[in-house]
Amino acid sequence: MQIPSIISTADAALSQSLTDAINNKTKPIGSLGRLESLAAQLGLIQRSTDVRIDRPAILIFAGDHGVVAEGVSAYPQDVTWQMVENFLADGAAINVFARQNGCALHIVDAGVNHDFGNRPALTHRKVAPGTRNFAHEPAMSSQECATTLEHGMALVRDIPGNVIGFGEMGIGNTTAAAALMHKLTGLPLARCVGAGTGLNADGILHKERVIAAAVQRHATATDPLGVLATFGGFEIAMMTGAMLQAAALRKVLLIDGFIVTAALLVAARLQPAILDYCVFSHSSGEHGHALLLEQLGAQPLLDLGLRLGEGTGSALALPLLHAAANFLNQMATFASAQVSERSA
Amino acid sequence: MQIPSIISTADAALSQSLTDAINNKTKPIGSLGRLESLAAQLGLIQRSTDVRIDRPAILIFAGDHGVVAEGVSAYPQDVTWQMVENFLADGAAINVFARQNGCALHIVDAGVNHDFGNRPALTHRKVAPGTRNFAHEPAMSSQECATTLEHGMALVRDIPGNVIGFGEMGIGNTTAAAALMHKLTGLPLARCVGAGTGLNADGILHKERVIAAAVQRHATATDPLGVLATFGGFEIAMMTGAMLQAAALRKVLLIDGFIVTAALLVAARLQPAILDYCVFSHSSGEHGHALLLEQLGAQPLLDLGLRLGEGTGSALALPLLHAAANFLNQMATFASAQVSERSA
Repeated sequence: MQIPSIISTADAALSQSLTDAINNKTKPIGSLGRLESLAAQLGLIQRSTDVRIDRPAILIFAGDHGVVAEGVSAYPQDVTWQMVENFLADGAAINVFARQNGCALHIVDAGVNHDFGNRPALTHRKVAPGTRNFAHEPAMSSQECATTLEHGMALVRDIPGNVIGFGEMGIGNTTAAAALMHKLTGLPLARCVGAGTGLNADGILHKERVIAAAVQRHATATDPLGVLATFGGFEIAMMTGAMLQAAALRKVLLIDGFIVTAALLVAARLQPAILDYCVFSHSSGEHGHALLLEQLGAQPLLDLGLRLGEGTGSALALPLLHAAANFLNQMATFASAQVSERSA
Repeated sequence: MQIPSIISTADAALSQSLTDAINNKTKPIGSLGRLESLAAQLGLIQRSTDVRIDRPAILIFAGDHGVVAEGVSAYPQDVTWQMVENFLADGAAINVFARQNGCALHIVDAGVNHDFGNRPALTHRKVAPGTRNFAHEPAMSSQECATTLEHGMALVRDIPGNVIGFGEMGIGNTTAAAALMHKLTGLPLARCVGAGTGLNADGILHKERVIAAAVQRHATATDPLGVLATFGGFEIAMMTGAMLQAAALRKVLLIDGFIVTAALLVAARLQPAILDYCVFSHSSGEHGHALLLEQLGAQPLLDLGLRLGEGTGSALALPLLHAAANFLNQMATFASAQVSERSA
C-alpha cells in the first residue's frame, strides 16, 4: 500500500494576491471575519484567486464494531444497517441537509454486519461484517487495514468535484475514535471519552474502562497504522484513506464531528500537510471533540451542539463555503463600485 | 402612533407536541443541538408542528448620522449613499449572500444624506437627510421618531413571507447603537463602544468621549422612545418599527449584528414578548455585541467574527433556518424507518 504524498498549500505570493483581492472588496478590512480566512484557504488549495466550489459531495462510510459486545453504546448494533437503509430511503438528517444544500451523497458499506443484497445506490466495499472486538484482539489485521485504506483512496479517485465532505455511521464508533485519540495524542482517556449516542454517566465510565483495559492489552500498537488497525473501524480507516487521496488531489476536505476528526488525526500523523486542505465544519457536542480540534489547530465554522455524525455538520457548513467563494468572486471592489475608501 | 402589541409564543401543549415530533426523528435525542431548539421555536411562532419557511426577505435600512461630524467613523459619510448604490447594483456582500441563499432584498432609504433620484429598486422613506448631531441636540424630534417607526411598521405590512431579516447601512451608526445600549441597559459605556468600521484605539476612546458628553447633555432622555429619538438613527428607528410589526404579525425575525440588535433592544423595552420571535443569526466581532446578546438572553447561531452589517449575518444564517424546518418536516421517524430505538 502506498500512502499518497501531500504537499503544503503554502504560497506567499498567492497568499498576498488573495489578501489584496479580499481587502479590495467593498467592506471594511476584515469585516467578513472567518469567511475571509476561508476564502484565502480555498484559494491556496485551488492555486487561484478565482475560487470555485464544484459538485460538492459527501461520502458516508458505515461500519460495525466488535467492541459493542462490551455494552459501550446506548443503541443496538442493528441500528448501523437500519440507518444505512434510512440513508438509502432518503429519511435521515444527512439526506435532508445534503438535498437542501445541493450536495451529492455517496453511501459506502465499509464493513456493516448485514447483507444488503444487490443495492445499486449503495457502494459496496465491505471488508468484513464488522471489526473484531478490540477488548480481546485487534479490530482488524494489518492486511485488512491496508485493504480498507486502499478502498478509500480508490473511491475518491472516482468522485468528481473539488469538495469532499466526510460522514460516518457505526454503532460503537465513538469508542473506537476515543481510543484513537487517546493513543495518538497521549491525552488522558477521560478527556477523550464521551456519551456517544447518549450514555449516562455510568455508561461513560464503563466505556472508559473498556478502552483502558484494551489499551493496556495492546500496548505495542503505537504507530498510526498500527493504532488504526488495533482500535479503528472499517468506516474510520476507509475515511482515512479517502482523506489522504482527496488532499493529494488538492480537493477541499470538509471535516465533520468526532469520529471523522479521529480518522483525520490518523491521516495527519501520516501526512501532516493534509491539514492545509481541511475545513472544519463544526465543533461537536461530543465530549473530546473540542479538545481534538484544538490538538489539530482547527478553527471550526459552526458550534451548534450537533452530535449526530452522518456528515451532518459538513452538509450544514457547505453554504459557508459557497459564501466564502461567492464573496470573493462576485462582490464589487471599492474601485468598481466607486465607493470611498477609509479616511487617513 | 400605536405600538403594535405582541404576545408571547408560549404554548405548553404545542411545545410538547414539537418535542415529541423532534424526538421521534431517526437520531439520538438532542443530537441536532441548536437546530432542535430552533425548530421548536419556529413551530411556536407559526403555531404548528408543520413549520414552513416562506419567501424570506431581508430589509436593509440606510440612514445618515449627524454625529459623524465629531469624527467617530473611519469612513466618510458619503460611503452610506455609495453603499446604497452598491446594493442597488448588486455588488455588496449582502447581495451575494441573499442571492446565494434565496432571500429577497428590500433596500430602504430611511434617511440618507443624498438625493437618489427616481430609483424604482429603492424604497423611498427618507424622513430627513440624516439625523442631527446628538453631540449638540437630539438626533431627531419625537415627531420624526414616531414617523420613522410608523414607516417601518407600514413597510412590513406590505412584505409577503414569514421570515424577515434585518440589516442596515449608516456611517456612524455603531456610535448611535452604543449610546442606545448604554442608556437602555445601564452597562458602562466602555463595554458598549467598539471599533465600528475599523477605528484604532485612539479613535475608539474619542468615540467613547463623544458619546459620554452627549449622554450627560441629554440626561433627561430615559424612556425607550426618548432615548431612541435622542441618540438613534432613522435606519435604527425604522427597523425598530418594522420589528414590532413583524412580531405582531407572527413572522420570524432574523436579527443581524450590533446595530440591528440595538434596534431590537429598543423594541424589546417596549414589547418584551418580541424576543420570542427573534432568531439571533450571529455574534458579531463588534465589541459590545456579545454582551448585548447576553442582556437579551440570546443564543446566536453563528460566531464567525463578522462585523459588516448590511444583514449579512441574517443572510448567512438562513440555511440553518431551512435546516431546522426541513429536518422537522422531512426526516423519517424511528417507526416509519423501522430503526430500533435505544436500549433500556
